Amino acid sequence: MNSANPLVPGLSLNTATVREQWNLAQMIEACARHGIPGISPWRDKLAELGAEKAAAMIRAHGLSVTGLCRGGMFPAATEAGRQAAIEDNLRAIDDAATLGAKCLVLVCGGLPAGSRDLSGARTMVRDGIAAILSHARAAGVPLAIEPLHPMYAADRCCVNTLAQALDLCDEIDPQHAPLRNGASVAALGVAVDAYHVWWDPELDSSLARAGANRLLAYHICDWLVETRDLLLDRGMLGDGVIDLRSLGRRVRAAGYSGFDEVEILSRHWWSVEPDVVLATIRERHPACVA
Amino acid sequence: MNSANPLVPGLSLNTATVREQWNLAQMIEACARHGIPGISPWRDKLAELGAEKAAAMIRAHGLSVTGLCRGGMFPAATEAGRQAAIEDNLRAIDDAATLGAKCLVLVCGGLPAGSRDLSGARTMVRDGIAAILSHARAAGVPLAIEPLHPMYAADRCCVNTLAQALDLCDEIDPQHAPLRNGASVAALGVAVDAYHVWWDPELDSSLARAGANRLLAYHICDWLVETRDLLLDRGMLGDGVIDLRSLGRRVRAAGYSGFDEVEILSRHWWSVEPDVVLATIRERHPACVA
Repeated sequence: MNSANPLVPGLSLNTATVREQWNLAQMIEACARHGIPGISPWRDKLAELGAEKAAAMIRAHGLSVTGLCRGGMFPAATEAGRQAAIEDNLRAIDDAATLGAKCLVLVCGGLPAGSRDLSGARTMVRDGIAAILSHARAAGVPLAIEPLHPMYAADRCCVNTLAQALDLCDEIDPQHAPLRNGASVAALGVAVDAYHVWWDPELDSSLARAGANRLLAYHICDWLVETRDLLLDRGMLGDGVIDLRSLGRRVRAAGYSGFDEVEILSRHWWSVEPDVVLATIRERHPACVA
Repeated sequence: MNSANPLVPGLSLNTATVREQWNLAQMIEACARHGIPGISPWRDKLAELGAEKAAAMIRAHGLSVTGLCRGGMFPAATEAGRQAAIEDNLRAIDDAATLGAKCLVLVCGGLPAGSRDLSGARTMVRDGIAAILSHARAAGVPLAIEPLHPMYAADRCCVNTLAQALDLCDEIDPQHAPLRNGASVAALGVAVDAYHVWWDPELDSSLARAGANRLLAYHICDWLVETRDLLLDRGMLGDGVIDLRSLGRRVRAAGYSGFDEVEILSRHWWSVEPDVVLATIRERHPACVA
């Protein structure tokens, strides 16, 4: 990495943060320029460039790929729909392997259209993950179940607490099987996003339960008061009420040793000049590190 | 009750549902007219009429008071602020006693202004409830801790799951002390609102744990897909994705035998002619009863 700015160790940019301003090639170049050593692409951005070309460019800029967003979306009203989701996840695993991504993040999906059967959707998620795990292991790509905030239970993800995500991991992979012989992480684990879990009264016990083995990714942004939109009003680090310093310390105390990946879905920050967004993240990040 | 419509047993109207259209006197009269045998006033509406006058009018119309909304809001940045909250809760208990309300609903409060200390706020909630419980018992008014959806953790209520609410109950009242000798309910329990808890993967075990003893109120409305506002976009029964029939059955199987209280905070339903709102609730309610 040959940066115009001092390197910020352990910082990663999730491409959703500047998705409205830049394409993936611009983001890769900007991360290197801003001294941000990690990147986590979404698949829409990856598709623009192609996985092979993106992987080469990311390598050439010396960046780590802290995750690929996203697989998942398993529940569907029909068997054909569920099978299509599984096939799409297999392709995502292959892309994550091409990128050398540290994990494929799974946003598991909500209720099928017209359904009120939350328990049934959760079963579909379990079955979907079970159907792709062996391919992920063979490809060397850990699967990271991301529990999403309960306000997304209906339409995006019916896995809504870290404890529930870990229950899923233990049900599908009771042995905590390592990704490969000697690997420090399991092939199946979790992505912890501050925005989704900060409120959880059982968070500390769940983090301890996850441990180094299952903690595959850590995403950060902030919860604004007041939040004006359920999806697109996440806050810049430090602008909200999440005690990110404390949370980061607790995540690391539980055994996580990876990057802090900044993922801010925000109409406001999408309207800001993207170099300013990255400079702001650089500037705010130290206060989020214990 | 002398109703123009057939009585709908077990149905109650929370005044928030038509708060923009009617005053409390109009609501009391309308409940009787629509065959809705229960009412649960908010304190802003109660203040218009006064507790004594409201109690007399509610009695004259043969309605049950299924709760008074709301006490709580315990956390504050200063000791004086916390003391003021406690005094306000004591007045709310007295008003609930005057009304013969089945409980005082506690919306416990979020983070004090400028604070990121969620754990500290939760301690303030515990201390606040502990400070008012003996007054509630003396007044014969059970306190119902209402866990609010995690999306309100910052600004309205830092008690966000039923399990957490029950942990609070057990910490403050380890004996599950009955309201009075021979009473079937404890002096401290919970209000379960479908909107706040429907997503919870641990809901069934928590309901069973609560039991008849701690289950003091059951509120219903629906979760819309898509939800456009965090506070004021609740759905009419049947318009969303909550399986209210299943949930009602589970709540009753856990021992609850009280009313279904309809509480819909919704800009849409506040714009509708209120007799239409009540007629819609009447019409939709049977599908929510097991």
